Amino acid sequence: MDAKLTVDEVRLTPILVSDPPLLNTQGVHQPYTPRLVVEVVTRGGVSGLGETYGDGVYLDVARPLAEALPGRSVTDVNALFEPAPRPDAGAGTGTGADTGADTGVDASGLRGVRTPEKLRLSVVSAFETACLDALGRTLGLPVHALLGGKVRDEVEYSAYLFYKWAGTDAWGAALDPAGIVAQARRFDREYGFRSFKLKGGVFAPDQEIAAVRALAREFPGRPLRLDPNGAWSVETSLAVARELGDVLEYLEDPAIGIAAMAEIAARTDVPLATNMCVTTFEEIPEAFAEHAVRIVLCDHHYWGGLHRTRELAALCRTYGVGLSMHSNTHLGISLAAMTQVAATLPGLRHACDTHYPWQTEDVVTPRPVFREGRLGVSDAPGLGVELDREALAVLHRRWLEDDGRYRDRDDAAAIRTTHPNWTPNHW
Amino acid sequence: MDAKLTVDEVRLTPILVSDPPLLNTQGVHQPYTPRLVVEVVTRGGVSGLGETYGDGVYLDVARPLAEALPGRSVTDVNALFEPAPRPDAGAGTGTGADTGADTGVDASGLRGVRTPEKLRLSVVSAFETACLDALGRTLGLPVHALLGGKVRDEVEYSAYLFYKWAGTDAWGAALDPAGIVAQARRFDREYGFRSFKLKGGVFAPDQEIAAVRALAREFPGRPLRLDPNGAWSVETSLAVARELGDVLEYLEDPAIGIAAMAEIAARTDVPLATNMCVTTFEEIPEAFAEHAVRIVLCDHHYWGGLHRTRELAALCRTYGVGLSMHSNTHLGISLAAMTQVAATLPGLRHACDTHYPWQTEDVVTPRPVFREGRLGVSDAPGLGVELDREALAVLHRRWLEDDGRYRDRDDAAAIRTTHPNWTPNHW
Ligand SMILES: [Mg+2]
Ligand SMILES: [Mg+2]
Repeated sequence: MDAKLTVDEVRLTPILVSDPPLLNTQGVHQPYTPRLVVEVVTRGGVSGLGETYGDGVYLDVARPLAEALPGRSVTDVNALFEPAPRPDAGAGTGTGADTGADTGVDASGLRGVRTPEKLRLSVVSAFETACLDALGRTLGLPVHALLGGKVRDEVEYSAYLFYKWAGTDAWGAALDPAGIVAQARRFDREYGFRSFKLKGGVFAPDQEIAAVRALAREFPGRPLRLDPNGAWSVETSLAVARELGDVLEYLEDPAIGIAAMAEIAARTDVPLATNMCVTTFEEIPEAFAEHAVRIVLCDHHYWGGLHRTRELAALCRTYGVGLSMHSNTHLGISLAAMTQVAATLPGLRHACDTHYPWQTEDVVTPRPVFREGRLGVSDAPGLGVELDREALAVLHRRWLEDDGRYRDRDDAAAIRTTHPNWTPNHW
Repeated sequence: MDAKLTVDEVRLTPILVSDPPLLNTQGVHQPYTPRLVVEVVTRGGVSGLGETYGDGVYLDVARPLAEALPGRSVTDVNALFEPAPRPDAGAGTGTGADTGADTGVDASGLRGVRTPEKLRLSVVSAFETACLDALGRTLGLPVHALLGGKVRDEVEYSAYLFYKWAGTDAWGAALDPAGIVAQARRFDREYGFRSFKLKGGVFAPDQEIAAVRALAREFPGRPLRLDPNGAWSVETSLAVARELGDVLEYLEDPAIGIAAMAEIAARTDVPLATNMCVTTFEEIPEAFAEHAVRIVLCDHHYWGGLHRTRELAALCRTYGVGLSMHSNTHLGISLAAMTQVAATLPGLRHACDTHYPWQTEDVVTPRPVFREGRLGVSDAPGLGVELDREALAVLHRRWLEDDGRYRDRDDAAAIRTTHPNWTPNHW
């Protein structure tokens, strides 16, 4: 293989990124959230970028992978999926006692099972993205061309509405229907998003129903989604589905687990979507057999990369299951990767989620600009983003200087700094 | 996109290839079999190769596709799968009355349902392969690197044993267990194949059982397969499974259809494999739900290309279904494509089928050489094969001069030239 495609060095840069106080069923976003930036540098002197979760447990997996990569070719991404030493999934997650091993829920409790393999894939994905970026830059080809080519020139994203505290950001508080509608108006005005997703599971279902109703009045006919991250019982989920069935594009993870989701699905016509009960290939057969969901949200991070995302899309297409895209808090590297892979998926007919507008900081320059809720698919080499090394250094210094409070995301700990006796709500 | 990757011209060259009189449940191979060679030439002056079925109905699909490709990029293979004008699947197949539309079986009756979409994919696959070859040649990368990289350095193939008439080839007749064993010995000696597959459905099951038994005695412990192409009833299939259960790696398509296969599977421990009841993504959900097969044979031709083959592999992996590889009569272009994609499939744990040793003619040079039943995975740019334009011209001239007898494969017509009253057997 061409020597210039050989990996010379891998740089891992953990960072802490400012995050507004967005509420969810697990608590509230901390002021800073950890991310990991992966740089794969080839002997040809080309650098490729990847981004993933930055909590300690991910760093523990990333370090040996980074050491093993030099000498391999950046074309060799399938081999990245070969078994590697697997850490104990429970070690070092820094998770609050209400989530984690007992419930089989991951560190932030918002994206399904936690297994060593899923953890590994979440790290491998950043290496795969970085390799594809480096390969594309070397060859002068966009990443989408390395995945068989784009089937669309723009990717649509949805507005991600959150209940939130006022914080120090420019968005102010949103704690009731009026606040959510005001937030949605701003997303509509500044980004042009057509679809709106409300992160629910924060207030009692009646209040969240009222918020969605208010959105429907304000934006008639626009696709609306509600995602309480499994905070509801089957009966509550069905009650919400009855109330909102006429306005919801889909109801996302109303309850926890394939069995509960399947029971809800059997008793309502409202499409159910998930990024919690189907988050690994292992979960697919049962979920599809039970007709637990009509839409799966892909996420190249925990599904294991851009190639695996395309495989998930093929599975969904084959089984007549719809495809959308999940977002965790992320920066511009991941946004570029999401856009590149989304551009290659023929069956992607729902707007993708993204937290990106909530992030005031980034490590790429210039920042991508949404127009009419869409991002153009870059045809520039690789991911089409440039690393802002100064910004990276600032965010890395913040990580270095952190006293251990924010290096592991812990939404429950964050909310307990204000409400010491807070526990997750279930309705 | 780089102008040198833009398609400048597509050349379609139908050819007729010498074929020995191999017997199967549909009749006998004609003296010549049609194939289509697809050349995609870029503005950079690079030529990429693909190969597929050459019957008239395939040519009818290929021509408009060839006209539509210039101006597109060879990276744009996902877009090849976008809907195109679809011919009537029944038109121009030249199929004998005992196969075809009535039974939903394809022109040669040996690879499952016949649908317009499957026909289209069978043609698209050659264009995809040619684009990937051209892309790899331009970039200096092997095709496997364009699919995420190889996970093995050699691909294992199995000996493909056939009952056959003497013909003009060097193999002589094989019409009984001794003939099959002699044939197997030669495959073992000259190619080093470890696995043996007998094409059955030709003689009564007892005779084929005797042949497999003779192989088991001659080659103890070696993987053996028997494939009667659906010529048996459920009860006959079960009787054969009982007789050969201790020596078969798998029993391939003993009966027709998912229901029959599922019934057999439920009543025997012998693994069932198929390239007849699961040949399209549409057939997968029912077949997997019914546990009709334990192994699916991929085939990049009718599954729609190398990317789609990888998607099929992901489906099999997800559902715990094994993966092997099917072969139709093919030349060295397809063999190279089969080897390149097989090299990237982690779950491929059965030796791939190939008719290649039966072909005395080829359009690539030098001919690939099997060592210990394996082919090395080429790291040369593209598919790693060179077109022999003289050989191509000779075989194309044969096609041009053909009076209509051989331009469409028709095994039934071929056997009736000797046995006018022949009809397919079912046991
Ligand atoms: Mg969700
Ligand atoms: Mg077969």
